[in-house]
Amino acid sequence: MIGKEIGKMLLENKENLLIPADRVAHVQMNNRLNHALLVLTKIGYSVIPVLDNNYKIRGLISMPMIIEAITGLEDINFDKLGDIVVSDVMNTDFAVVNDPYDLEEVLHLLVNHAFICVASDDGSFIGIITRSEILKGTNRIAHEFENKYDVIRKTEHLH
Amino acid sequence: MIGKEIGKMLLENKENLLIPADRVAHVQMNNRLNHALLVLTKIGYSVIPVLDNNYKIRGLISMPMIIEAITGLEDINFDKLGDIVVSDVMNTDFAVVNDPYDLEEVLHLLVNHAFICVASDDGSFIGIITRSEILKGTNRIAHEFENKYDVIRKTEHLH
Repeated sequence: MIGKEIGKMLLENKENLLIPADRVAHVQMNNRLNHALLVLTKIGYSVIPVLDNNYKIRGLISMPMIIEAITGLEDINFDKLGDIVVSDVMNTDFAVVNDPYDLEEVLHLLVNHAFICVASDDGSFIGIITRSEILKGTNRIAHEFENKYDVIRKTEHLH
Repeated sequence: MIGKEIGKMLLENKENLLIPADRVAHVQMNNRLNHALLVLTKIGYSVIPVLDNNYKIRGLISMPMIIEAITGLEDINFDKLGDIVVSDVMNTDFAVVNDPYDLEEVLHLLVNHAFICVASDDGSFIGIITRSEILKGTNRIAHEFENKYDVIRKTEHLH
């Protein structure tokens, strides 16, 4: 369980924690890899969500996945970029939580994932939570918590 | 300034905070982009440090930077990968701190950078500090701080 006061300060900026879907670039399952590579290059990110035709989140695709898919034993075979669709290459084992999300679960997942996808119960893509936004909370706690709270080590009560 | 007790818990794992240089993949200034792309694909990361011949950190290179460099008005021109060297494309405006590093500065920089390079005073590459390691500290504080400390809001003293 997350501490009550720490949790409060971590979530002070809660309305900005989720980047809504309409501000997150994505590709679709049936897009070709050359399209996905251009989208990733244009936005300067290395990994983005993959949605199906019903706007449901189905996976993530990254530049390393794309290049890996066209790399043979020795060479990268760029001609294959137009032959392979995103759904053949995407990672379907990604971090997703349902809205309303649990901060404890999100915090835990962010240790090993650069961002967490948030979806409705039916899988519709709602947005992402990034490490950057949580780290703003870490900075807030590091700088402000002990200004706002008296903090006394519990074991000291025993002495 | 960072709170004394919060800072202590954030740094409990300090010896693991820095990933040492010998465990961080890198490329060299005069490597061609096709080599850099293969290294990035093999390790599955999207951005890595660029070192010079004296093992000094000089920049970062990412997959989006590489593909951007060979993208024309309409097409990606993969033939150019062998013609361009890393130093022509790398980002030299990256986050670097000197060792011994200041946690406050690192925390601040990590909001906008996926990792921070750590260098000695003469620029030699020592390692990186990642968001993941700091987020382990955030999880520790969220779960343990209020178990270990009594926390009393200071303004409540006024009532």
